[in-house]
Amino acid sequence: MPVRIALDAMGGDFAPGNEVAGAVQALKLVPDDAEIILVGDETALVPLLRASGSPARISVVHAPDVVTMSDEPSSIVKQRKTSSLYVGIDLMREGKADAFVSGGNTGAVMATATMMCGRIQGVSRPTIGSFFPSRGNRPCLLMDIGANVDSKARFLVDFAIMGEIYCKLIQGVERPRVALLNVGEEETKGTEVVQEASAMLRARPINYVGFCEGRDILSGKFDVIVCDGFEGNIVLKFAESVLGFLKDKLKSYAKGSILRGLAMAAVAPMLKAALKDMDYQEYGGVPLLGVNGVVIIGHGSSSPKALANMIRRAVEVVDRDVNGHIRAAMASPTTPTARQA
Amino acid sequence: MPVRIALDAMGGDFAPGNEVAGAVQALKLVPDDAEIILVGDETALVPLLRASGSPARISVVHAPDVVTMSDEPSSIVKQRKTSSLYVGIDLMREGKADAFVSGGNTGAVMATATMMCGRIQGVSRPTIGSFFPSRGNRPCLLMDIGANVDSKARFLVDFAIMGEIYCKLIQGVERPRVALLNVGEEETKGTEVVQEASAMLRARPINYVGFCEGRDILSGKFDVIVCDGFEGNIVLKFAESVLGFLKDKLKSYAKGSILRGLAMAAVAPMLKAALKDMDYQEYGGVPLLGVNGVVIIGHGSSSPKALANMIRRAVEVVDRDVNGHIRAAMASPTTPTARQA
Repeated sequence: MPVRIALDAMGGDFAPGNEVAGAVQALKLVPDDAEIILVGDETALVPLLRASGSPARISVVHAPDVVTMSDEPSSIVKQRKTSSLYVGIDLMREGKADAFVSGGNTGAVMATATMMCGRIQGVSRPTIGSFFPSRGNRPCLLMDIGANVDSKARFLVDFAIMGEIYCKLIQGVERPRVALLNVGEEETKGTEVVQEASAMLRARPINYVGFCEGRDILSGKFDVIVCDGFEGNIVLKFAESVLGFLKDKLKSYAKGSILRGLAMAAVAPMLKAALKDMDYQEYGGVPLLGVNGVVIIGHGSSSPKALANMIRRAVEVVDRDVNGHIRAAMASPTTPTARQA
Repeated sequence: MPVRIALDAMGGDFAPGNEVAGAVQALKLVPDDAEIILVGDETALVPLLRASGSPARISVVHAPDVVTMSDEPSSIVKQRKTSSLYVGIDLMREGKADAFVSGGNTGAVMATATMMCGRIQGVSRPTIGSFFPSRGNRPCLLMDIGANVDSKARFLVDFAIMGEIYCKLIQGVERPRVALLNVGEEETKGTEVVQEASAMLRARPINYVGFCEGRDILSGKFDVIVCDGFEGNIVLKFAESVLGFLKDKLKSYAKGSILRGLAMAAVAPMLKAALKDMDYQEYGGVPLLGVNGVVIIGHGSSSPKALANMIRRAVEVVDRDVNGHIRAAMASPTTPTARQA
């Protein structure tokens, strides 16, 4: 059966233009029979689609209302049933779409998808991760990055299990190295929660390698780094602010000197190219894992290219049955020994 | 009375050479009557001092043993009584020195000073902060950065009070803007602990401005950002790793192209100069606040210049009576209204 992806066509900052363009681009990235459903205001979407040649595999489902970045996440399910966010997730719940992709309000997507689709059996908390660039040849998945705060140890264990499966099936890492984020590598370091989670993870049939520190996120030594959403969110937002900070520092240094200005102009494209793999748009969004459904979330300012990559990513998550693997892992006994028995 | 600073002359990675050179440099930065006591192996220190012209205001107190970075912090008090770290702190406890400065094992300095000198009355937990560069014209003090994990709300409140006093008296900020690090600025966001701490801080006579996020650390919008040592340590170590990561990315991009290599060579000193204010060595170490004593801690790889700045900083902390102000704040009622009454 062909994979059908519902795209929140009104969610992003440049909606629906970027969303329609992204859907058209995505057709070249996904299998020949995959279908894309644009969810949003049809009076805006239909003309845009027509201008793109009305591709046969892109359809429109009307949803007149738009959830904005300032809307309260928990209010959508009850009060915003004609929004593109609600209608898109509802298509997935009803089996009319296999996945939902949005560049909209992350908290609202997460809350609505969790409430409407429910959790995969055995999952304590759904989670969102984010990819960090690394010194290695692939990015590092940090998770959770803000969906959950005050996480209990078993939540962290579930994040680790789900992150490992995602990394294996989607990033193609054969044996992902999974670590817990902490203030030191020694066994005695850290909070009670990470201590407990570490002990629990050692009993799991995954490649859990122990604690790591903040400096290890970019190191390339780990494929999945697990943490509570509190520190995950703080370090993600800090990281996102660093490049802008550095650019401004360099700019203000170059100002007032023609020579420095010229050197800056020469090096600017170089900086950009060298930092290309710090560009989240390349990663195809971030997954919401643990819900009964496939949800890929992107930045509000996602470009058409980023949205196309998110759609491709959603198809992969469906095709490779990430949720089936999560379901199986959650149902399996906790220790390798027990599993063999 | 002249201020007397005890310097752990064996603590750093380049001890005792950098320490002796730093002490000699410091003489130009501190008041004319200030004295510096080098604590360490006299057979190594005396010849170095002699080679520097045996300055009259620098003396030596012998301590043959050296605490290394891998030593267990809690073991020093009982087992390492002839170490420069123990002997230096002991000089302060006995009133023979007014402050202790070290580029050694941070955890060991913190634990030993707390155990030997005790806490200032009313302080729930001593804390260490660190300075981050900012878009503003002064650095931001993030505290705690690893001394305490699983902090209770009242610990965070004490960190805020002590950080505000330090920022006022040492950084010279008239009315420091104090914020709590969180995953969002909205009042409802975050962990139970930050929620509780925020409510408590609103009742305090300091300029508490509410929650801030990871992206605000470098923004220049806040002078003191308070957090538990768990996330503080993670974000600090992440931040320390970013510059090296960027440099390596640029280098590998420049490799294999003569033009790019030339552009890199042209821009390298520029990068360095532009990022000068990200250099912790300029900030004169970080303070351990809340103990009955003045302790300034620096990086293990501290240069003579960094050590000289740390010594100057220690003199300032003594002269401006930071601990007296902390003592008074801890003894005062909690609300501005109550204080006026």
